[in-house]
Formats: sequence, C-alpha cells, structure tokens
Amino acid sequence: MSERIDDLQINGYRLIQNPELFCFGMDAVLLASFSKAFEGDKVIDLCTGNGVIPILMEAKTKATDFTGLEIQEVSATLARRSVELNGLNDRISIVTGDLKDAVDIFGASTFDVVTVNPPYMNENHGLVNDYSPKAIARHELLCSLEDVIRVSAKLLKPGGNLFMVHRPHRLTDIFVLLREYRIEPKRIRMVHSFKDKEPSMVLIEANRGGKPNLRIDSPLVIYEKKDQYTKEILDIYDNGGNFTFNSNSNR
Amino acid sequence: MSERIDDLQINGYRLIQNPELFCFGMDAVLLASFSKAFEGDKVIDLCTGNGVIPILMEAKTKATDFTGLEIQEVSATLARRSVELNGLNDRISIVTGDLKDAVDIFGASTFDVVTVNPPYMNENHGLVNDYSPKAIARHELLCSLEDVIRVSAKLLKPGGNLFMVHRPHRLTDIFVLLREYRIEPKRIRMVHSFKDKEPSMVLIEANRGGKPNLRIDSPLVIYEKKDQYTKEILDIYDNGGNFTFNSNSNR
Repeated sequence: MSERIDDLQINGYRLIQNPELFCFGMDAVLLASFSKAFEGDKVIDLCTGNGVIPILMEAKTKATDFTGLEIQEVSATLARRSVELNGLNDRISIVTGDLKDAVDIFGASTFDVVTVNPPYMNENHGLVNDYSPKAIARHELLCSLEDVIRVSAKLLKPGGNLFMVHRPHRLTDIFVLLREYRIEPKRIRMVHSFKDKEPSMVLIEANRGGKPNLRIDSPLVIYEKKDQYTKEILDIYDNGGNFTFNSNSNR
Repeated sequence: MSERIDDLQINGYRLIQNPELFCFGMDAVLLASFSKAFEGDKVIDLCTGNGVIPILMEAKTKATDFTGLEIQEVSATLARRSVELNGLNDRISIVTGDLKDAVDIFGASTFDVVTVNPPYMNENHGLVNDYSPKAIARHELLCSLEDVIRVSAKLLKPGGNLFMVHRPHRLTDIFVLLREYRIEPKRIRMVHSFKDKEPSMVLIEANRGGKPNLRIDSPLVIYEKKDQYTKEILDIYDNGGNFTFNSNSNR
C-alpha cells in the first residue's frame, strides 16, 4: 500500500494517508474550522475515516475527549496510527464500528458535540457491487443521511450541537430530517469556489432541542482569483494545517 | 390620504402607492426578477398589496393572465387603480379576498405559477391589537407561512412553480412546509447587502410534485460599496423598473 504522511502544520501534527483509500479534502478542514467544542466537552466524529477531523479539532479547541467512529477497519487503523504518531492516545480514541450501532456502543445522550463529514452521494453511482473503500466513503452504501441524523440525535445530550458538511443540493433533505429528529438547524454557511459561483459545500450547525431560528453566515469563498486563495481560507489553513491540499475533495 | 405615483420605468408603467399603507421594496422587485412565467401561463400573486409584482411580471414575461389576491380592500383598490392606469385591465385582475379562501374562489390546480411576498414576521410584534394595514402586511396576523404554502400547493397545477421571497431565518420552516405540502424546493438565491455580509433575503423556487434536488444560485449582492449598487442590481432595475427605491423594504 502506498502511504504518505502529511504535515498538518498545527501543533506539529501529522496525518498518515493512503491515496488508494480516501484522502481528506478541504471539506474536512472547513468542517473542523466551522465546528465548535469547549473545555470538558465530549466530542464524537462519525464517519471519521483517517481521523483528520478529531486530530484538527484537538489542536484547535480546548476539548480533550475525542472519539472517532469508522466502519472500515483499514481506515480506522490508519486513524489509530496517526493518533499514536501525534501522541494523542489519551485524547482521541478511534473505534471501529457501524454508525447504526453507535448508541449501543456509546450510550444515548453521551456527547456534547457530534461532527460528521458523511458520504454525500445518494445517486446510483453506476457500479452496483462496488463496495470499495472509496465508494463506501463517498456514497450512502453503508449509512444514509437519515441514519447519520437519527444516530446523531440519540448520541447528543440535550442542548448538544451537531456540525456537518454536505452538498448544497441535499439541503432540503438535511433540514427536513434535522427537524424530524429534533436537532434544529441554527447556522449554515455556504462555501463557494469563487464569489460569483454556486456553492459547492454547505456547513451546518444544529442544536438538539433548539428553537427554530436559522442564521445564515456570509459566504465562505475559496479563491480570490485563479490559483490564489482568499485571505479567509489562508487564515483557516494557517490555523488548522497549512499543508498542500486538494480543493476538490475526492468525494 | 397621501398618495404618490412612481414610474416603474418599464413599458411606461406606473404604480400608485400610499406610504401610510405599505410601499413595495426591493424584495418585490427581486422576486419579480427571480420568478419565471411563460406564454399561456396563468399566474397568481398572493398577498399582492399594491399589485407591483403582477404589474412588473406582465412587463417582464410573455404571460398575459395575471391575478392578484389581496385581503385588504384599501390596498386592493390601489392595485386596481394602478392596473387601470396602465391599461392592463384585460391582463391583470385584482381580487379582494382571504388567501385561505383562495381555493374556493379560484378552484384547485388552476395556476401554472404562484408568486408571493408574504408577511415575514411570526414573532410577537408587541402591539397585540395592532391590525393596521402595515402590521397586516408585515406580520403573520391574517395568514401564516403554513397557510401560504398549503394554499399555494392547492392552487398550483401539478408541475407548476411557486416563487417566494422571505427572510433567511425562516428557511428551515419554509423547506419543511414545502416538503410537507409536496412543493419541492428546486432553487434558492441568497440576497446580501454586501458580499461579506449575512443574507437579508432569500428567493425560493419550488415545484409542485418535483423531485428532491436543490440548486443554490450564486449570491445576489446589492451594494458594490456604500451608495453604489452592483452591476447585477442595476441590470435588474434597468429591466424591471429603474425608479428610486428603498433598499430597506419597509416590511
């Protein structure tokens, strides 16, 4: 297997990745930046993959109790090795398991914060029997959006927050499911490659048991012009990893 | 009563307004620009107020069969006088009536297009017994968001489109109700005063019986800098009325 080790440029942290599996993209970095966690919070990252989100959030926030749940053993193993490499065994625990069993594994109303960068695609992706690691990370093969939201609602303590990144074309589904499972959308932010383009991602904050009242943030724009990031993106990367990244997440 | 006549700068159309009642704002102009209607379409504007939306859409589109429904006789009278003033009696019919009776008045599955700039506010507005014309136009006193969406679903032909302008903080409510009444959100556009500010309005297109798949347009930005409109706004006003307007709609 071809592996590489990326420098996350924060706290000296590094991340082991295997391009044959699934490498994190800008969506993970933006989600880690958008998400909030405070001292004493218990945080779980669902669909954690190679563990980039809890590792970045451990560096960025004062929370010290992180769990990453990943269904694919091969990805979970990479994540555990990165946690070990960064000396974070006492702060980040990587669990191999199915998101649909998460309430049995961790108990209900256990977490202050849930983060998730789930598989985005619910379309037929053509390859009916393709259960490759990349296909599982990208498509709703082993868990649906409804699974993610239903399980998040159960894992969160009342008043706890869910942070998710997803594709804009699913926003109606996301809002309807969040309302149905009583995690009220409180804040969203659209991510645009250029200021005059349609958004390519949406960041969502929702609160278990919260009252209806949505705040829509100013647009987050990635490129000032071709090959030049905006100041905001450079600031996010300065604070959360200044590595070479692929703005087109490979999801 | 103090009246004024505004030049809509399109087709020579003019609009009679009374500032003591309710004057249209940029939201109405942007909704008329965002909405689509084609030759042969039957179009109804709910909560039509002084009739600005059907008058602008008659000028902008090839549709020739417009109805405006307004609950307040005093506003409906102004709208009728503007229709008369512009010689549009054969194309725009202003009906005084309660939106909640619209299906009885017009019949179910009658319209290809519904447009609506409804009362935005569902908060307690402090003045409990204030049923002034302005309060009725601004607050959900005589009709709720759910009334608007339920009635729109019934008035629309299968495949017909609803176009609405509203406040961003209600977007979850809007999506949940549209899905519940089977008018699927298909396109939204956020309107921002400045490119780095939160949106102040959202434009929504939804399709009766449509499949889930939301398109989010690029942001619509009003000001390039203080006191200078963006080119897009100037273009919209060139095409749909280049009058002096108040960017802070008085809703």
